[in-house]
Amino acid sequence: MVRIGIDLGGTNIAAGIVTDDGKLLHKVETPTFAERPWQPVVEDMIALSKRALTEAGCTVDDLRSIGVGVPGTAINGVVVFCTNLGWHDVPLEREFRAVINRPLYIDNDANVAGLAEAVSGVSAGVPNSVFLTLGTGLGGGIIINKKIYTGSHGVGGELGHLTFIAGGEMCTCGKRGCLERYASATGMIRLASEVMRTHPHSGLAQAANNDPANLTGKLIVDQAKEGDPAAMMVFDQYIHYLAQGINTIISFIDPDMVVLGGGVSKAGAFLLDAVRLALPNYIFFRTLPHASIELAVLGNDAGIIGAAMLGAA
Amino acid sequence: MVRIGIDLGGTNIAAGIVTDDGKLLHKVETPTFAERPWQPVVEDMIALSKRALTEAGCTVDDLRSIGVGVPGTAINGVVVFCTNLGWHDVPLEREFRAVINRPLYIDNDANVAGLAEAVSGVSAGVPNSVFLTLGTGLGGGIIINKKIYTGSHGVGGELGHLTFIAGGEMCTCGKRGCLERYASATGMIRLASEVMRTHPHSGLAQAANNDPANLTGKLIVDQAKEGDPAAMMVFDQYIHYLAQGINTIISFIDPDMVVLGGGVSKAGAFLLDAVRLALPNYIFFRTLPHASIELAVLGNDAGIIGAAMLGAA
Repeated sequence: MVRIGIDLGGTNIAAGIVTDDGKLLHKVETPTFAERPWQPVVEDMIALSKRALTEAGCTVDDLRSIGVGVPGTAINGVVVFCTNLGWHDVPLEREFRAVINRPLYIDNDANVAGLAEAVSGVSAGVPNSVFLTLGTGLGGGIIINKKIYTGSHGVGGELGHLTFIAGGEMCTCGKRGCLERYASATGMIRLASEVMRTHPHSGLAQAANNDPANLTGKLIVDQAKEGDPAAMMVFDQYIHYLAQGINTIISFIDPDMVVLGGGVSKAGAFLLDAVRLALPNYIFFRTLPHASIELAVLGNDAGIIGAAMLGAA
Repeated sequence: MVRIGIDLGGTNIAAGIVTDDGKLLHKVETPTFAERPWQPVVEDMIALSKRALTEAGCTVDDLRSIGVGVPGTAINGVVVFCTNLGWHDVPLEREFRAVINRPLYIDNDANVAGLAEAVSGVSAGVPNSVFLTLGTGLGGGIIINKKIYTGSHGVGGELGHLTFIAGGEMCTCGKRGCLERYASATGMIRLASEVMRTHPHSGLAQAANNDPANLTGKLIVDQAKEGDPAAMMVFDQYIHYLAQGINTIISFIDPDMVVLGGGVSKAGAFLLDAVRLALPNYIFFRTLPHASIELAVLGNDAGIIGAAMLGAA
């Protein structure tokens, strides 16, 4: 028996056949073409699922469940919000069941990636973990006792929107000072564009041709790795923001592990070592054991594996 | 069968006999004299427990368990930290068991009060709640599935020390910008002392004789209730801080209910109505159901009842 996991992204849809213990057997992809109405996108998701099954030599009879990770929020089989795709109240379970009559589970992509790491990734050995996707935004996935925890109304785990500097930078959500404004790649880029203005001859500024539009998390990290003082200043400030965000996670629910994923985590040991060094300045109980900080290990497959595992809980 | 609940405070020790369903039958108190070494304080706690039993017409044979709420942190029967009392690694369970050989449970006082409200107070009808004590400090108690949740190492629920304004006011814990600096009574008093300086003829300043040492949460709230513009400005800023702190709670673990206790909560409906009005400005999913905000109802007895209930989980 197998499960299908679907990773619905703004650019691509990926679907995979996954075993009960979280091993990815086969994977297929197709472009999302997110500007379309939701109906043809969902039709493509269903067709992709069938293709994955066939190519893996399986039939619907071998299929236990289907799981979908969405860049948004789902409640009771309905995708309530999915801003990047312009989705609102899309009845995904109903549409799938009409064609492939198997249990369908939907969850937020950060929750799903957190579950994947907890099932067959870096946090597989511990019951409680918090997964952070450090990308354009900042997503959070809370795992308690090996299960995704989204709270009483399914609106928890929105760690990008914790108040981090009350009255601070305006967020896309309409509030000010959300953690996402400071600890995402976008936050790092905003810091860098400010530093670039006052350091126009820095390696950072030269690498970006003094144009903020050229700044990326990777460019900044690469410059910091090369020792450019301006980029190091940006990276250091970013690390101290991230460490303070991790303090909030530890002081709140004290997990076994905090897992760093998303684009910024590709900085690897350079990021991890810096965060581990900064963290003791910011946690409450400095002398008591607390969460370890680790990098995600499953990469792009986390979305598929975690989605498939939604049905295994 | 009954349980003993002990509320260990900096000023008084209270002990009570509590039924299995959280009803307080009898209560006794004695001064803490916190400046003493821990040994005589613990001896007094044990003597008080025996007295409570006798006065309630019970014996040790009727006793299921003893629970203690401490203004600090306990792990494995040992009070690890208890700053106000100067306690460090006090073997409370060992000391009690040597005299009254019954299971002993210890937890933080805010956790204990949150449990009491969840067992027989305002949050009795819901599985998941977060209790906030808004006093000199800001304590948090997280209840998930009717049980206290303190995480993987027992250091969670320290909601006063979430990073709320990174780089902000220095906290007693050594970090900057903790929620406690803004949303406790102490935070309200700091705001008021700033406003008093620039508004020396306000009702607020006159009520405090223009001396910051005279400012209390009650004085500020009373002046705001009377419509003094300076006090209203302070109270309004406080409410907006508190509402943003509640956003962090909701966006993080999305409980059924957030319960407001501690000294500031004595402002009653004046506080509650203001928080409820401010909150929609700060939560992430404005159109989805989220936690209700309520006032604690058990008052001073919460510490005893919750401590007794520690053994009933």
